Amino acid sequence: MELYYCPLLESDTYALSPEESRHCIKVMHHVVGDSLLLTDGKGMIAEASVIGYDKSNCFVHIVNKRADTSKRSFTFHLAIAPTKNHDRMEWLTEKAVEIGIEKISFIICDHSERTKMDLTRIERIAIAAMKQSFTTNIPSLEVISFDNFLQQYGHQKGNKYIACCFAEDGAEELATADITSDNIILMIGPEGDFSSNEVTKSLKYDFLEVKLGPKRLRTETAALYGCSIIAARKLEKINLK
Amino acid sequence: MELYYCPLLESDTYALSPEESRHCIKVMHHVVGDSLLLTDGKGMIAEASVIGYDKSNCFVHIVNKRADTSKRSFTFHLAIAPTKNHDRMEWLTEKAVEIGIEKISFIICDHSERTKMDLTRIERIAIAAMKQSFTTNIPSLEVISFDNFLQQYGHQKGNKYIACCFAEDGAEELATADITSDNIILMIGPEGDFSSNEVTKSLKYDFLEVKLGPKRLRTETAALYGCSIIAARKLEKINLK
Repeated sequence: MELYYCPLLESDTYALSPEESRHCIKVMHHVVGDSLLLTDGKGMIAEASVIGYDKSNCFVHIVNKRADTSKRSFTFHLAIAPTKNHDRMEWLTEKAVEIGIEKISFIICDHSERTKMDLTRIERIAIAAMKQSFTTNIPSLEVISFDNFLQQYGHQKGNKYIACCFAEDGAEELATADITSDNIILMIGPEGDFSSNEVTKSLKYDFLEVKLGPKRLRTETAALYGCSIIAARKLEKINLK
Repeated sequence: MELYYCPLLESDTYALSPEESRHCIKVMHHVVGDSLLLTDGKGMIAEASVIGYDKSNCFVHIVNKRADTSKRSFTFHLAIAPTKNHDRMEWLTEKAVEIGIEKISFIICDHSERTKMDLTRIERIAIAAMKQSFTTNIPSLEVISFDNFLQQYGHQKGNKYIACCFAEDGAEELATADITSDNIILMIGPEGDFSSNEVTKSLKYDFLEVKLGPKRLRTETAALYGCSIIAARKLEKINLK
């Protein structure tokens, strides 16, 4: 059964967005009386039935609502310097949502080649990926400078890591680093890596340097590798450490 | 320092391919006497010096050759049903090469939407990814039917897994499954998953069903997740199990 996105699930009756309505009526050929599954992208699932439609909207009545029990019990916050090529950030977003992610901060760094992002496009991709992978969580998205990122999140408790190509020899692998906290932050730098100045600043906020394997990975590949390792290591019944 | 691809590293003097020559002379502005690093894509690295060039070729003399010590001590063989969208197989190849992979078999399954692949394009992408990630190994590539794949590789010793969306409840997660063998094979099905007939056949060849986390992943996302988990768990000094 397919999933429809309905950002608000508070009252009993809704008009789905024109895009969702089109998919429901024109593509899936649903008719009055059919049952649908909706999510608000914030971990809620609702069963609804089609009560009518016109040219641009499909009207649904919420039958019942529940919290998605498959929602993860921790928060993985990825901070990544956007790549010059916007496509790479788009597919990173799609893949990260499929594998699991709660927040993405696109951080503008000293060596960033890109300083602007089209978040509306990225959010559309996140919604599509959420529906396709049948999950109920859209990551919150933002574009923020490196310094503002540290000021805003640096004081949080949790497992906070910064991945540098040239990490200290003592730096641990993400594959074995401590991820027992329910709040995990991973920072991934631009193609030119973080500046030494940025690394020094992050350490002051108790970020730890971490390695992502022995190979030189592109920014978006490093992020995907990180998402996968965290998702696998955090699987409820599994403790890989 | 950048890496150049030279499929043969047997004699002392070579003409780089027109593409590699262009990059070396026109893009990197190398001149006679400059030192280069070459790889044959099979785990060999050579130091060479530019001895001359013409319109289409750069001629190099091999100074010394050695086996790349960073080459992995195991073989990860991914068998994946190609997606309808060719781009998704292209970026999977790029990412898999960056993270690490020794062989990719594009398997044509009962539910495959695509039955043909342009391997020349995929190989070009693999070579570029190898150079970009500064590794020395191009995975061997093939298109093969599901049945022929089982006949050809099913009798191999090793940790052999088939990932199904609807795996048995008893099926283990790849994150904890036994990967102690130096020969690991992971089969990923098409969007419509493997047919029950295909799963049954694979079990006869001692493939084990394995799960790739709790979420429904696209074919290429599942493959990337698999590559990452294997690479992380196999990191020489790390035993995640």
